[in-house]
Amino acid sequence: MRVFITGVDGYLGWSLAQYLTHKGHEVAGADNFLRRSWVEEMGSWSATPILPMNERLEVFKDHFGKDLIFWNGDLTSYDLIENIFREFQPEAIVHLGECPSAPYSMIDVKHATWVQINNITSTFNLLFAMRDICPEAHLVKLGTMGEYGTPGVDIPEGFFEVEFRGRKDRLPFPRQAGSWYHWSKVHGSNNIMFASKIWGIRATDIMQGVVFGTRHDSMGDEEQLLTRLDFDQAFGTAINRFCCQSVIGHPLTPYGKGHQKRGFLPLRDSMQCLTLAIENPAQEGEYRVFNQFEEVYDITDLALTVQKVSGDLGLDVEIRNLMNPRDELEEHYFNPDHQHLLDIGYQPTTDIESEIRTMIEDLMKYRDRIEAKKSALIPDVFWDGSKSKVRFVDEVK
Amino acid sequence: MRVFITGVDGYLGWSLAQYLTHKGHEVAGADNFLRRSWVEEMGSWSATPILPMNERLEVFKDHFGKDLIFWNGDLTSYDLIENIFREFQPEAIVHLGECPSAPYSMIDVKHATWVQINNITSTFNLLFAMRDICPEAHLVKLGTMGEYGTPGVDIPEGFFEVEFRGRKDRLPFPRQAGSWYHWSKVHGSNNIMFASKIWGIRATDIMQGVVFGTRHDSMGDEEQLLTRLDFDQAFGTAINRFCCQSVIGHPLTPYGKGHQKRGFLPLRDSMQCLTLAIENPAQEGEYRVFNQFEEVYDITDLALTVQKVSGDLGLDVEIRNLMNPRDELEEHYFNPDHQHLLDIGYQPTTDIESEIRTMIEDLMKYRDRIEAKKSALIPDVFWDGSKSKVRFVDEVK
Repeated sequence: MRVFITGVDGYLGWSLAQYLTHKGHEVAGADNFLRRSWVEEMGSWSATPILPMNERLEVFKDHFGKDLIFWNGDLTSYDLIENIFREFQPEAIVHLGECPSAPYSMIDVKHATWVQINNITSTFNLLFAMRDICPEAHLVKLGTMGEYGTPGVDIPEGFFEVEFRGRKDRLPFPRQAGSWYHWSKVHGSNNIMFASKIWGIRATDIMQGVVFGTRHDSMGDEEQLLTRLDFDQAFGTAINRFCCQSVIGHPLTPYGKGHQKRGFLPLRDSMQCLTLAIENPAQEGEYRVFNQFEEVYDITDLALTVQKVSGDLGLDVEIRNLMNPRDELEEHYFNPDHQHLLDIGYQPTTDIESEIRTMIEDLMKYRDRIEAKKSALIPDVFWDGSKSKVRFVDEVK
Repeated sequence: MRVFITGVDGYLGWSLAQYLTHKGHEVAGADNFLRRSWVEEMGSWSATPILPMNERLEVFKDHFGKDLIFWNGDLTSYDLIENIFREFQPEAIVHLGECPSAPYSMIDVKHATWVQINNITSTFNLLFAMRDICPEAHLVKLGTMGEYGTPGVDIPEGFFEVEFRGRKDRLPFPRQAGSWYHWSKVHGSNNIMFASKIWGIRATDIMQGVVFGTRHDSMGDEEQLLTRLDFDQAFGTAINRFCCQSVIGHPLTPYGKGHQKRGFLPLRDSMQCLTLAIENPAQEGEYRVFNQFEEVYDITDLALTVQKVSGDLGLDVEIRNLMNPRDELEEHYFNPDHQHLLDIGYQPTTDIESEIRTMIEDLMKYRDRIEAKKSALIPDVFWDGSKSKVRFVDEVK
């Protein structure tokens, strides 16, 4: 299948290009390296060293024996996408090319506006180009479980049957996102749902949990195929950040009470799930929602798991909660469905400890890189608009 | 109260500035005259003649004895809003300054993207400037009943108590908007709801029905105080369009089967309701939703009413349905609540026939202006992306 990946230089994009190529798909991608700039703006870099794209593409070809077709360009340009679609005629479009950071979107009005506009515009461009150039193609759009927030009822996959004052209907499940970034994903989901309705676009909207890990199943031991791995306050996800902290002997830092619950999945499962979605496309006019995660964990339980695995590897780390710069519930109900991917063959990785072990072992090689940027680990972006380094809970009491 | 109105040159804005000034409020406004350009782009103009802003401001001062403080500028500039807020220190901000047209947003990718970006950016700028400069102020944001779409259950005012799998929660009511424009309003509503939550912003989100009419209660008979009134496919609302059609002997043109149901209210009631919202502000951190309309009508019933009133005035018009360029249900359930405004004193105008009579009498003076742009009455923007003049249903059968 011809698959076009936006954001192909990113954490998921670079991995997915490999995974799909290994499985025999023809893969093209686009990127303009904004992720590299954003992370630099946050005073950090990838824990894993990453090559410039021209060198990445050479390593890719050497390893897989196939080219990754690549466009360097900005997805907010409709002309770019139009040209790519005319030339490549994609059968599936995997949209990973949005700005994915809650804290980055909360910095100030400029960042908030930019994140929403950037994310909405790129998705609009893809939708219109699909309508006009490849209307049979299937859009696989990366959203986030964070679109739902933490309601007091179960979270279905996108839609629910509801009874209200004696009448029934199937309605979109209400979204209660927790940052301007998360809302940008809701806005995008709404736009895609509407495009499917009026234009018959085939779309799968992935409400993805928090991804962690350094490895997927098709990269072998080629270090230069490693994907980026961020650990700064804005682009590092929880487990990845904890593992980087562990490697340099920095305390693991849950926010607030630390009993936020989230869905998580390892990178290799994210690859498996995205590929299942691609290989089992939505019907014409179908807008379907997949809640994509393996298991729900409490953040403190995860920190304890990282601490335990670290101990096994001779790394002695403490858990030290930070004051919470976010406005979020720290103890709450959270019970999302995740049946749709299981129905099409998802086989979850259940041994989270060995995933974490592999990741820490990989990261130990890059201890110096993490150490060099460790000040980026401590957040300073508050949801109330203020900016100062967050203090540890035990410093404040 | 110091009230700042965005879009003060528009249909509602120009009327509201008068209404509030007459009631003794201190009013300022901003506009950059985009509405005039959009309507020109659609090949039309206001049925009522409107003066350039500098002359409007003189007439305003002559009539009310008070200045309307005015800024000529673009709300997508944060600096503009920051300067206005610092200088004027508004206690209420009425945000009428968004692009309000479904068909305009459906023209092509450029228009779709522009409408959403423009509307999101202006609202973001207001929210951030409120947070930083006048956190006690109250935002009254113009949304639309069209945010809800036409679900098969009753429509509450913004939120509903829902039971799902044995658990209960109060959740935002799901939105199912019907155009890129309507979705831009949903995106804005979501952003405001979140700003109220994290920053304590006081906000009233007005889900307004379709407004019609030429008059409100404070303008007297001063012709130069008349607000604009559009009749083109994109910026003309249903009853206003029907009345303009009637005046030039053009058939009244419901779309499709013509049994779409919508909430409607006359311009004078819109002024009354917005003023009630302003004078009864939301609490700190409260995000409240008002469904603002007087009564739900079937579009064909309205056309029949316009036809009847026209007949009384000696205007003989037929009703001739157009093929529907939109993707919407033409027969559906529609039962929205509208209690919140009644609770704070809204007294609905119930004599819709006399409102329509006044409007037609006003418009008869401008028959030539409508006649000159009558080709703008027939839509050519289809929801499927195509573009051609819509045909009458009886021409197709």
